[in-house]
Amino acid sequence: MSSNSLGNVLTLTTFGESHGPAIGGILDGFPAGIALDISLVQRQLDRRKPGQSALSTARKESDTVEVLSGMMDGKSTGAPIAFMLKNEDQRSKDYSNLKDVYRPGHADYTYQAKYGIRDHRGGGRSSARTTAAWVAGGSLAEQLLPEGVEIIAWVDRVGTLSLDANTKPKNRTEVDQSDIRCPEASTAAAMEALVKEVKAQGDSLGGTIRCIVRGVPAGWGEPQFNKLSAALGHAMLSINAVKGFEIGDGFAIAQKRGSEVQDLFEVEEGQVKTSANHSGGLQGGISNGAELDFRVAFKPVSSIAIAQQTITKELEKTEIKIEGRHDPLVLPRAVPIVESLTALVLANFYLLQKVHS
Amino acid sequence: MSSNSLGNVLTLTTFGESHGPAIGGILDGFPAGIALDISLVQRQLDRRKPGQSALSTARKESDTVEVLSGMMDGKSTGAPIAFMLKNEDQRSKDYSNLKDVYRPGHADYTYQAKYGIRDHRGGGRSSARTTAAWVAGGSLAEQLLPEGVEIIAWVDRVGTLSLDANTKPKNRTEVDQSDIRCPEASTAAAMEALVKEVKAQGDSLGGTIRCIVRGVPAGWGEPQFNKLSAALGHAMLSINAVKGFEIGDGFAIAQKRGSEVQDLFEVEEGQVKTSANHSGGLQGGISNGAELDFRVAFKPVSSIAIAQQTITKELEKTEIKIEGRHDPLVLPRAVPIVESLTALVLANFYLLQKVHS
Amino acid sequence: MSSNSLGNVLTLTTFGESHGPAIGGILDGFPAGIALDISLVQRQLDRRKPGQSALSTARKESDTVEVLSGMMDGKSTGAPIAFMLKNEDQRSKDYSNLKDVYRPGHADYTYQAKYGIRDHRGGGRSSARTTAAWVAGGSLAEQLLPEGVEIIAWVDRVGTLSLDANTKPKNRTEVDQSDIRCPEASTAAAMEALVKEVKAQGDSLGGTIRCIVRGVPAGWGEPQFNKLSAALGHAMLSINAVKGFEIGDGFAIAQKRGSEVQDLFEVEEGQVKTSANHSGGLQGGISNGAELDFRVAFKPVSSIAIAQQTITKELEKTEIKIEGRHDPLVLPRAVPIVESLTALVLANFYLLQKVHS
Amino acid sequence: MSSNSLGNVLTLTTFGESHGPAIGGILDGFPAGIALDISLVQRQLDRRKPGQSALSTARKESDTVEVLSGMMDGKSTGAPIAFMLKNEDQRSKDYSNLKDVYRPGHADYTYQAKYGIRDHRGGGRSSARTTAAWVAGGSLAEQLLPEGVEIIAWVDRVGTLSLDANTKPKNRTEVDQSDIRCPEASTAAAMEALVKEVKAQGDSLGGTIRCIVRGVPAGWGEPQFNKLSAALGHAMLSINAVKGFEIGDGFAIAQKRGSEVQDLFEVEEGQVKTSANHSGGLQGGISNGAELDFRVAFKPVSSIAIAQQTITKELEKTEIKIEGRHDPLVLPRAVPIVESLTALVLANFYLLQKVHS
Repeated sequence: MSSNSLGNVLTLTTFGESHGPAIGGILDGFPAGIALDISLVQRQLDRRKPGQSALSTARKESDTVEVLSGMMDGKSTGAPIAFMLKNEDQRSKDYSNLKDVYRPGHADYTYQAKYGIRDHRGGGRSSARTTAAWVAGGSLAEQLLPEGVEIIAWVDRVGTLSLDANTKPKNRTEVDQSDIRCPEASTAAAMEALVKEVKAQGDSLGGTIRCIVRGVPAGWGEPQFNKLSAALGHAMLSINAVKGFEIGDGFAIAQKRGSEVQDLFEVEEGQVKTSANHSGGLQGGISNGAELDFRVAFKPVSSIAIAQQTITKELEKTEIKIEGRHDPLVLPRAVPIVESLTALVLANFYLLQKVHS
Repeated sequence: MSSNSLGNVLTLTTFGESHGPAIGGILDGFPAGIALDISLVQRQLDRRKPGQSALSTARKESDTVEVLSGMMDGKSTGAPIAFMLKNEDQRSKDYSNLKDVYRPGHADYTYQAKYGIRDHRGGGRSSARTTAAWVAGGSLAEQLLPEGVEIIAWVDRVGTLSLDANTKPKNRTEVDQSDIRCPEASTAAAMEALVKEVKAQGDSLGGTIRCIVRGVPAGWGEPQFNKLSAALGHAMLSINAVKGFEIGDGFAIAQKRGSEVQDLFEVEEGQVKTSANHSGGLQGGISNGAELDFRVAFKPVSSIAIAQQTITKELEKTEIKIEGRHDPLVLPRAVPIVESLTALVLANFYLLQKVHS
Repeated sequence: MSSNSLGNVLTLTTFGESHGPAIGGILDGFPAGIALDISLVQRQLDRRKPGQSALSTARKESDTVEVLSGMMDGKSTGAPIAFMLKNEDQRSKDYSNLKDVYRPGHADYTYQAKYGIRDHRGGGRSSARTTAAWVAGGSLAEQLLPEGVEIIAWVDRVGTLSLDANTKPKNRTEVDQSDIRCPEASTAAAMEALVKEVKAQGDSLGGTIRCIVRGVPAGWGEPQFNKLSAALGHAMLSINAVKGFEIGDGFAIAQKRGSEVQDLFEVEEGQVKTSANHSGGLQGGISNGAELDFRVAFKPVSSIAIAQQTITKELEKTEIKIEGRHDPLVLPRAVPIVESLTALVLANFYLLQKVHS
Repeated sequence: MSSNSLGNVLTLTTFGESHGPAIGGILDGFPAGIALDISLVQRQLDRRKPGQSALSTARKESDTVEVLSGMMDGKSTGAPIAFMLKNEDQRSKDYSNLKDVYRPGHADYTYQAKYGIRDHRGGGRSSARTTAAWVAGGSLAEQLLPEGVEIIAWVDRVGTLSLDANTKPKNRTEVDQSDIRCPEASTAAAMEALVKEVKAQGDSLGGTIRCIVRGVPAGWGEPQFNKLSAALGHAMLSINAVKGFEIGDGFAIAQKRGSEVQDLFEVEEGQVKTSANHSGGLQGGISNGAELDFRVAFKPVSSIAIAQQTITKELEKTEIKIEGRHDPLVLPRAVPIVESLTALVLANFYLLQKVHS
């Protein structure tokens, strides 16, 4: 399978660089006859796009999705759905000074080492801008999920500030009540203040995004190397700047005893339930009907306005200070990315499960 | 791609259940002419097998690997390498009482929900026994890696006891100095004491395994959905009981500022180096030449001898107490599993990188 | 995907060499709960195995299939089905004289050129013996096809003798009435006489196999590179010695005018039918509900007892005369191979089509 | 793998319908640093496009390829190469009368049966127009093949007129000396006269294309299901209207005896050669260094101006007479399609073979 593809039955293949003519993708394996509302795709793209609030970069991209194929009269036809977002505000000259410098924390050096050639304009293929294509593909995939499946992600931690684990939003509207996309007002305010403070210092922040999915029936996911947990982890670890993934109690469960963290099976109104959800909604890589619940850790943004030592392509020492249009914190804009990739993974398993029905 | 396959150029496809005639796999895409030492495969299988020490289950399996194809005169031929491990100590009758009960924390219910049928004998396909095939496949893959690539995993945490982050073993021999596979004697002793105490209570423990890889050149890994970090995470999250994966500073990095955690590029004897390794050996999903460094979180073993509430297949309440041959802690035996899957992932990227050379 | 794999939803991955310990495969993606009759698999293996009649090689192989996983109580469990056939009558010494010689028409030279190493014993991985694993996998796949799908192949041509195009057998029993597997008695007798004559001369024959499939509903097959015709062609061209594939009127249709060879749509008892079947049961790579009908061309067996010029591994001239246990004509034994691969391809599309239902 | 993808290391994924906004594709796995001349891509597109001569449809499409990603300064960067061709001369209204009719020989009925919905405008996804994306992708792939690999296809048969098997063009220029793309002047003239005659009758013709490849080294192709012959066959059988594929002596070899058709190994100036090329350049699915040589059979164009019986979507009888802009013979325009798919298949194997070097 292509390295730029995700999913084995429903497959998204992406293309594009930060400063090329366009980014986009092809979503293949999409069933026919599904009504598609492109405005829902656009809504998620708008949640990801730069310049939404004072918290994010001022790069201007309308990020308008164009569907090139696979639809007729508002419905999918079974043909691959291709889509494209033109790059508008490219300003390639901004980056000419970075042509021969390896920015710390960025993929400049590793792309050069791998390919012997590098598109230095805005990070080229390694730019987080390319995740807009993931959001478009995932938002289309979300529309084929069965009624009742609801994916909600939010910012759970910014630096040392974190939301209480028991606080969960009802829906995306609650998440969007703050620019920072944390669904509890006072924590959100504190996070936003922290971002502003750190931004003023020319520094940046990391954090975590939490995502829950309601309405997934028992039975999604496949042994052994296509487990729901592994596929979700794979997708999340594909996001730029992500350094960790945990599901259910995650790393915390490693400190517990078995008797403390069992999800005991119970019956409630004829339905199998679990007494708790330490496992995050699955056993053996297959959903158990409980809420899927996982967390994704992002490192702080690597582009900072504080001077740092680095080297040039010719291996000479130099100093760098990145003063362009960069977010001090990517997480608010990453919320729809997490949701969209989750939708892609789930849609793949939903379709795969039809094979067993 | 088959759900029981891992890798897109070097592909391991596995088969087998806990209590069927055999488990095994097919490793395809293996280059020809590689000298293969089956005793090295056996050594890793021996480190995984039950009954090694007082810390693990008494199930008796010689776990002798038989190579069925793809080798001649001690070398790979380019044909798929198939291998098999017969199941010997099956005792299926031990499990007859579990036929109609859903064990908490196990995949009994989810397999039933997914497939409408379930091999209840020892967990069937969901049994951790099947990871022996991963170890065999990965140990073969390890032998095609270029000279100098060294993969070492160890137990980093058992319950609340953890090893200092700066302590790293030189080699696997240091890891194996204790039954618990923690390379620092006093921590190892404390961990072993804790395991015995918890075992005596009929309870179980979780923990973390850390893995480092030395000698990986810059350039392994692929954008966008075949990143080295995503592929490693995918592999690790495929292991039974794993609930989290982090690379480099992982979840801890989410609490930091950008200026605190940059890996600055430097030149040392004409080679590009980084001043630190917060990223765990990669940027943009591609290795940067530094040590790969990641951690895997395991939940406590679900089979415990303490009575717990659960339900039957007919959705009746029942109580269960699992008194079979179960480990109170899986981590020491999971060390070679982590290493072998890492070898598989790396061998895939090593071969894939040849396409660019 | 592994080069030794076929199918994207139902995937057969094979292993084994002519003279290794065993050949076999893993069939993954097989739905759970399908009753499997292993005797039906064995029946097809028996139709393929050597030594069935005076027409075929005397190599003795019981070709008994052992299922290693994926079944319980006579039903599939959803886990990968692995199976194995031990090699019994290996006589490797027979081949020692061929170690350093490139047999004309065989893959000896190309394997050496590709891999730099070669398993010379009976052709190694390139041996037609390995197709036994295809028959086993395909015969399992056949059992998941919906009621009414019937795959029948037969010998349609031996050298210059061919069966009338309008003669089609009702079932496999009719095919098996002659050793040569041609369902019309007088043609069969002539073919058998020809084989005996050519065998006596130490020479060999080629021919064609025709295969029809009844009961395939409209809608199987996928655009653009997974067309039913392309997938069938791919499978058939994978068979040793196959040099051509045609569907419907095939090469003959190239000589016609459009008005002569249209399959006109009609309605018969509320069902869409075609007035003829020049296309062989599909349009645009998707089945149209008519009989699938295709032909496969086999070159004459390359191993002949007539002396031929060739070269050694050291590029010296030499002469070779192959007097081992070889068939003068492979086609009767290839009939179940064609049927089994057809079953694999169809089962894949049947499952894939569930995604649209 | 996606059904609209071809190739396992170098993967082309396509999109688009006849009358949507655009057609195109993503070519992933393309090595970095390859100089790419887009005018060579355009040249092949121009050979495929409609309206080239009196022999083909008058549909006007400039078929100008736009590269959207994966290139910088005229070289590949290792990122996926996406490209697009806008649909210009759509005239969808031409097709409104076909909305509810199943055209004989076309995929109208099968798409409707498969998907329950159908893009009736010009055949939608099943239109041969979509092969322009294959030509673009294949022409890019051709540019990464090693120096000396030369792919030449030509029209070998039109209806009952065929070219002598020993006549082979030196290069594409010789092929293009006639509009019909048959490299022998008198046969070409006869073929063109036949096309005009048949066109005047409102009828259509089929034929065969032959393709040879010079300069392929021994060793390309993989056992067992990724044989060079099977991959070529798969690609060719993916082309609209193709009903047969044969390699080397193909169907004719089925009528021969082994002793008549052996390609004997010889040594010429230290190089292994074969005395003849009945096999078409490979043994065991792996190239042997001889010329690849295969033939592809096309059925006559289904759209004819002669009235034919058919049915409507409501299963009512009707009559149809297709008087649009249709070619009486597709073969001249299919020559670059055959070459481009061949290039894709070969480039995939060239890269795959690097894994063994």
